Amino acid sequence: MIRVGIVGGTGYTGVELLRLLAQHPEVQIVAITSRGDAGTAVSSMFPSLRRRLRLRFEDPASANLKACDVVFFATPNGVAMTQAPDLLAAGVRVIDLAADFRIRNPAEWSQWYGMPHASPEWVEKAVYGLPEQDRAGIRNARLVANPGCYPTAVQLGFMPLLEAGVVDLDYLVADAKSGVSGAGRKAEIPALFAEAADNFKAYAVPGHRHLPEIRQGLSSMAGSPIGLTFVPHLTPLIRGIHATLYARIKQEADFQDLFEKRYQDEPFVDVLPPGSHPDTRSVRAANVCRIAVHRPQGGDVLVVLSVIDNLVKGAAGQAVQNMNIMFGLPETEGLWQLAVFP
Amino acid sequence: MIRVGIVGGTGYTGVELLRLLAQHPEVQIVAITSRGDAGTAVSSMFPSLRRRLRLRFEDPASANLKACDVVFFATPNGVAMTQAPDLLAAGVRVIDLAADFRIRNPAEWSQWYGMPHASPEWVEKAVYGLPEQDRAGIRNARLVANPGCYPTAVQLGFMPLLEAGVVDLDYLVADAKSGVSGAGRKAEIPALFAEAADNFKAYAVPGHRHLPEIRQGLSSMAGSPIGLTFVPHLTPLIRGIHATLYARIKQEADFQDLFEKRYQDEPFVDVLPPGSHPDTRSVRAANVCRIAVHRPQGGDVLVVLSVIDNLVKGAAGQAVQNMNIMFGLPETEGLWQLAVFP
Amino acid sequence: MIRVGIVGGTGYTGVELLRLLAQHPEVQIVAITSRGDAGTAVSSMFPSLRRRLRLRFEDPASANLKACDVVFFATPNGVAMTQAPDLLAAGVRVIDLAADFRIRNPAEWSQWYGMPHASPEWVEKAVYGLPEQDRAGIRNARLVANPGCYPTAVQLGFMPLLEAGVVDLDYLVADAKSGVSGAGRKAEIPALFAEAADNFKAYAVPGHRHLPEIRQGLSSMAGSPIGLTFVPHLTPLIRGIHATLYARIKQEADFQDLFEKRYQDEPFVDVLPPGSHPDTRSVRAANVCRIAVHRPQGGDVLVVLSVIDNLVKGAAGQAVQNMNIMFGLPETEGLWQLAVFP
Amino acid sequence: MIRVGIVGGTGYTGVELLRLLAQHPEVQIVAITSRGDAGTAVSSMFPSLRRRLRLRFEDPASANLKACDVVFFATPNGVAMTQAPDLLAAGVRVIDLAADFRIRNPAEWSQWYGMPHASPEWVEKAVYGLPEQDRAGIRNARLVANPGCYPTAVQLGFMPLLEAGVVDLDYLVADAKSGVSGAGRKAEIPALFAEAADNFKAYAVPGHRHLPEIRQGLSSMAGSPIGLTFVPHLTPLIRGIHATLYARIKQEADFQDLFEKRYQDEPFVDVLPPGSHPDTRSVRAANVCRIAVHRPQGGDVLVVLSVIDNLVKGAAGQAVQNMNIMFGLPETEGLWQLAVFP
Repeated sequence: MIRVGIVGGTGYTGVELLRLLAQHPEVQIVAITSRGDAGTAVSSMFPSLRRRLRLRFEDPASANLKACDVVFFATPNGVAMTQAPDLLAAGVRVIDLAADFRIRNPAEWSQWYGMPHASPEWVEKAVYGLPEQDRAGIRNARLVANPGCYPTAVQLGFMPLLEAGVVDLDYLVADAKSGVSGAGRKAEIPALFAEAADNFKAYAVPGHRHLPEIRQGLSSMAGSPIGLTFVPHLTPLIRGIHATLYARIKQEADFQDLFEKRYQDEPFVDVLPPGSHPDTRSVRAANVCRIAVHRPQGGDVLVVLSVIDNLVKGAAGQAVQNMNIMFGLPETEGLWQLAVFP
Repeated sequence: MIRVGIVGGTGYTGVELLRLLAQHPEVQIVAITSRGDAGTAVSSMFPSLRRRLRLRFEDPASANLKACDVVFFATPNGVAMTQAPDLLAAGVRVIDLAADFRIRNPAEWSQWYGMPHASPEWVEKAVYGLPEQDRAGIRNARLVANPGCYPTAVQLGFMPLLEAGVVDLDYLVADAKSGVSGAGRKAEIPALFAEAADNFKAYAVPGHRHLPEIRQGLSSMAGSPIGLTFVPHLTPLIRGIHATLYARIKQEADFQDLFEKRYQDEPFVDVLPPGSHPDTRSVRAANVCRIAVHRPQGGDVLVVLSVIDNLVKGAAGQAVQNMNIMFGLPETEGLWQLAVFP
Repeated sequence: MIRVGIVGGTGYTGVELLRLLAQHPEVQIVAITSRGDAGTAVSSMFPSLRRRLRLRFEDPASANLKACDVVFFATPNGVAMTQAPDLLAAGVRVIDLAADFRIRNPAEWSQWYGMPHASPEWVEKAVYGLPEQDRAGIRNARLVANPGCYPTAVQLGFMPLLEAGVVDLDYLVADAKSGVSGAGRKAEIPALFAEAADNFKAYAVPGHRHLPEIRQGLSSMAGSPIGLTFVPHLTPLIRGIHATLYARIKQEADFQDLFEKRYQDEPFVDVLPPGSHPDTRSVRAANVCRIAVHRPQGGDVLVVLSVIDNLVKGAAGQAVQNMNIMFGLPETEGLWQLAVFP
Repeated sequence: MIRVGIVGGTGYTGVELLRLLAQHPEVQIVAITSRGDAGTAVSSMFPSLRRRLRLRFEDPASANLKACDVVFFATPNGVAMTQAPDLLAAGVRVIDLAADFRIRNPAEWSQWYGMPHASPEWVEKAVYGLPEQDRAGIRNARLVANPGCYPTAVQLGFMPLLEAGVVDLDYLVADAKSGVSGAGRKAEIPALFAEAADNFKAYAVPGHRHLPEIRQGLSSMAGSPIGLTFVPHLTPLIRGIHATLYARIKQEADFQDLFEKRYQDEPFVDVLPPGSHPDTRSVRAANVCRIAVHRPQGGDVLVVLSVIDNLVKGAAGQAVQNMNIMFGLPETEGLWQLAVFP
């Protein structure tokens, strides 16, 4: 049994981690911390866990996280970079679901996240946790930077094309749509039901924090800098991301085949048959990315459709997948739930 | 392994059965039939099942259902009563998720369902599959009539009060609200998104088909006829039923204690602490009924709040629970998924 | 032209008032105040008003509200009772959309609203603004207490029965469902999209602040105390209230006829034909209450279905209706918009 | 008063026309036809119109449409092309809300709409009813082809750029998202609430019928052929279209200024300040297109955000706007309703 700790379990990624880990056959959740809610039974905050999870939130100061094999940080940006180094030094492995260790260049990180980086030395050692890209690195990582939700959907959608070098790198477009849980469990007016329901809008068009993360990933796949326009939208879903990706063809290929081959051994990436349109509910509550490739009207533009559940393959599920890899478990262990439909 | 067949798997209860049974460790799905979609891969209709269920729909005429240990009917009302007897005669056990065998009086059934009953002899032998009421009967049943969704929520909410004889039987009120999946996967105008979203309405106030089923169950619990007003409503949920029950106190008792004692050994009924308000999402995609008991302002009226997922504890989950009981499996086998929150 | 001021225009009732008043042919909006947003253009907060309303929010201290003919308070509870008296003394008429002047007994008000009442003398002079009940009183009122949303739906639904004395007063049940905008434009976790969407729950079953208001109104109609169980629910609508009302028949009557006669001259109460089920969208964005009367199975219980838009007939629309009455305008002036369907 | 007839009033564009025309001060609705519902009171099908519209649906054969000044066709594609010519010959002016007369090349029309064109001679005479593009043509038109919903949002968003010749014409991208009412009031599985709620998907990526219409319009604006990738998506809104448009800059300009100048005299196109993100609810139920222009990260790609209500500026509202122009009324007459927020 892997002894697991969770720092910051009161948000949506936190409770989703709890849902997955509480059902994971090889995991024992040892401690979960919350400064504000120490002493509260977890299941009194989240009745969906009643009678199945008997833990209470503990104060981060007193929780015995160093006795864990692995600690997940489901905290706001800026927390893990100050608290993880101490655990890492004690030999605990860490998976950070926030953005602290995702950007390789601490200066760039600071610019987008508005604070100096507290632990640039661990940025260097961190492994970016996209299993489809770097399974070997993750296996040996002490610190995994779990990818963002948009970056997961966008990178998996572009990866085969960029690795194969078949599209124009200067003008990639990622038009992405996210459910409202992506904004976190924070009391803010724009995330209210009466604001977000029956409404659709783009946001952060001038520049979203996931832009440098995606750009870094795509450049790494392509082996050279890329030009990307990334526009996120808020859509009245609870969960789900749909990325619609546009790329100009530079070199002919059997694009469907390219995707199928690239992902043929991946347990959590599903390439749909030609002509398909994946819907977000087909991955609701499941750790899957479903992808379809189109070439409308036989023209020179490829359209890739990529869907994930932002809380699962886009956050907690991918984190558990990374844990499985790190601890030598079958990668699908505890992640085999079917999507909830309808 | 239990060899399972499903008749009629293209509706919402059918696909929910598939989700649960495909993850059930003791089940092998042998055949699934659909007249209209014979030959189609199940996962091409329901992409949520891709790579996990490799069956195709078969024509009912050719499917070898008699080789099954148990067959689930997830068909419209009126189908099981004509097709089940043949299977039953062959020794196959049957769980009918439709209404064919729920009403003990075939004449009353005919009146509400608008057709003569084709198999009154099996009505007599059928066991009403509410485990919390008749676990022993279900264990030995050859034919289980799986309860309706409203009847499950309403009966579990009233049961402790009626069995204890503490409320006025003449004036029970069940104000119930259902998600739209309760209407089935049928192309009908009122169930369109543009009709049912951002809208709330009562329906069938003059008389809903679940009324006689509920009345029969409550009378049986009370040991005498009861007077019930039942008003169903359509609410913009995909899944979920919330029953708000009103009963006048006839005899003082510790009502909270009454509920807790009655359900203390039930794996799938969860009595919340005093003052709670269960929400439907706390049971989303899970086989649980959560109940809270209130006595507003210390008056003479009890208010019971009872929530289920209409497709799970209100249909497919309860059917699997019944199967587990019938085949001597642990009752929670394959039904241990946590609710999906948010 | 009526010179109108609005105190507190940044909530949902405030912006709805703006929508209605900006289109009212006899109204000039002179000032709108907001402490926190003074100086901000109203249409930059509410782009739906762009190019049609050129006002800016003013600081309450400097706004010249005394030059108005009437001032609407769209403020949290407790504001109008401290600020309105000064305006009233200056001869300005006031319509309070909050609860400050709704409860005739200041001690009871204090108990439910958790603060002492600052202006009991104006409570006495205030007129409860339900036009269908007291049009004459409203006409001459200096201060109108605009009814709550639930109280409007419930009182209009019970009124004909109570006035006619045909139902048992001891055991009235009001099971009411509200859209999320009823909770106001406040950043609170339970009102988030990811919490309230695809979810249904009761709340405040032990006692909701609208209970004493409704009880007071119903008792006044009945001419004697009544026993009421009131259970509010949160439903995933933006706008809309559906009240399902239960009453035991005490005296036979033609109940449909009773309702039709009672409301035959009312411009904003629409009694549907027998057998109808009003849906909330049929009143979306319109100042209408639609009502249907049922007697299920010919029994001894009446079920009344009553729907309003909580922000219109349940708040801002009714406030404008009251203004029209107070200033001798046709009651429908500026309130003649059709419901938005779908 | 303009005497108006409506052919086919039982769909969403039909009932929206009724909402707008019933409130139009210069219109008398003379007749509304429906083959299937002849004899039915319009308000019994659409209770939102109760007590405000006393018409009944008439059989198309017997309705006296030739006595009208103008007839709106709110029918499926293929109806107006067979029935309008007779009315036009009788001197009645016609506004077709379907696609019959939108594509100038009847052969191309046939290819996309799957039937031969019944009236190519009227295709030639028809005027495409986008007022912002051809107000003069509409004024004198006998037959107006009212634009599609996607085409309205996309064309208004690209128009200033194409007319000014400042972007690369070879690689335009229109990623468009529509509410479910855009699919019409047809009983089809994918439009069910339980299918479309909490779900997001692209559709018709290989080729949507609005593609040739948009391409024709954009080419006309640009004065030369354009290359367009158009991907429509279904999003869980009742109403609303959000078009996200991408274009590569070919020639520097003050793009914000370009848009503001182009639309400065347009009553129904609202260019937002720099940095804005229009949301669909800001135009809900209103005849407005709101547009924002972005140049993310100061790069070489422009992003234009364009929102409309698909049933108003995208259908019925634009049709009434066209009628106003045709009959010399102020263009805003009867179209001045503010958006419904929240």
